[in-house]
Amino acid sequence: MPLGKVRIVLVETTHPGNIGAAARAMRTMGLCHLYLVNPKRFPCAEATAMASGADKLLAQAKVCTSLAQAITGCQKVFGLSARSRSISWPVLNTRDSGVLVVQEALRGGEVAIVFGRENSGLSNLELDRCNYWVHIPSNPTYSSLNLAAAVQVMAYEVRMASMMDDSRHSAESPSASIGEIEGFFRHLEQTLIKIDFLNSSNPKLLMRRLRCLFFRAHLNVREINILRGILTAVQKKAQIPEAAMKK
Amino acid sequence: MPLGKVRIVLVETTHPGNIGAAARAMRTMGLCHLYLVNPKRFPCAEATAMASGADKLLAQAKVCTSLAQAITGCQKVFGLSARSRSISWPVLNTRDSGVLVVQEALRGGEVAIVFGRENSGLSNLELDRCNYWVHIPSNPTYSSLNLAAAVQVMAYEVRMASMMDDSRHSAESPSASIGEIEGFFRHLEQTLIKIDFLNSSNPKLLMRRLRCLFFRAHLNVREINILRGILTAVQKKAQIPEAAMKK
Repeated sequence: MPLGKVRIVLVETTHPGNIGAAARAMRTMGLCHLYLVNPKRFPCAEATAMASGADKLLAQAKVCTSLAQAITGCQKVFGLSARSRSISWPVLNTRDSGVLVVQEALRGGEVAIVFGRENSGLSNLELDRCNYWVHIPSNPTYSSLNLAAAVQVMAYEVRMASMMDDSRHSAESPSASIGEIEGFFRHLEQTLIKIDFLNSSNPKLLMRRLRCLFFRAHLNVREINILRGILTAVQKKAQIPEAAMKK
Repeated sequence: MPLGKVRIVLVETTHPGNIGAAARAMRTMGLCHLYLVNPKRFPCAEATAMASGADKLLAQAKVCTSLAQAITGCQKVFGLSARSRSISWPVLNTRDSGVLVVQEALRGGEVAIVFGRENSGLSNLELDRCNYWVHIPSNPTYSSLNLAAAVQVMAYEVRMASMMDDSRHSAESPSASIGEIEGFFRHLEQTLIKIDFLNSSNPKLLMRRLRCLFFRAHLNVREINILRGILTAVQKKAQIPEAAMKK
């Protein structure tokens, strides 16, 4: 069950009510592992009250003294970020993130989804520890979701992805892992440079558009193999002229 | 803008804090019309505190004395229901509902999404007034989302549906037509033959798999142009050796 591999990490939460409400949100979506990094007050009656039927989940929450401790043993870490665009980091929306979280969990990897402080989110140092930044598509003039509401949306997307995964594949070919997808993107980028389609000094926008396209397709392992086979064939052809010229 | 055609209706809400939190959830997703049917306490400082930056939306909420009054003028009414299956009524999940809400709103119709009481939901008589029942896919052993959390999930799905609509049509780049997609597939097939990846005497299974992959991605015109640009660059490279050999 992929949901058992997912942990929700709340960093330096100020209001204990939000911790309880986040626990409730998690349980409604079938998530059960809650990690709290330096919560301002915990345990706390206010948190328990807001947890409603998720009080057991809340009581089992692990309190940590650092983000590093909370994500120990995780293969992939997703960090919620208000920044919707970044030149330097892969930013995904909540829907695509849910799919990747489930893909990784299905491979047996532990996955952490990290939420920052109510007022200031995650610090740059904390975001540096995340493999992916997750953006909730929200109203640009008011994007401030309550912490537990953000946990609810992300947990919902993880559950939806796990249900779609159940209903869709496994029979045909397993979903590609994050590592396989990233390996394909590196192969694609090298090939595009080789055929002079991509200017390696400024590859960013083109690669982002292609990433976006292939993320939408939710590639499985066989498809990754087909695509990489095509890239290898292209690279082989692109190398011939050099050899021919040398003669 | 389809989101302006959508109203959120809360029926007999007990806790004013939930009304405020629902207003905040709505605003984060770009919804702005809130209707309250017989709220237990409203207006109320607790609601205003929980609304955070959505206090104006909350102040403009329309208080009604019946569900019938709150849905007057609506072409379609969606009612949240804990029942996941029904013999007699169309039940949709939140994702499919979001798409239908936006489709209706794009046609110019007003749409209501109705949420029941914290403890007991909507009555049978109230559900009878809804064209569709909406089910949030949740943990069967604990499906009790907080009211504002349910509003957040549903509003999120409406926003996602409206954005997908935007990105597929008009805004960024229009969706590719069938002719454009078929042109790309012909170009792809020729290129794969040229680089000796595809055996033209038995191309069918490979091409079918690639078609399946790219269909899933719902390509837009700009993406088709990028992909065909890559294919042209590959063909150019693949032609060089022939020329080089002739010398």
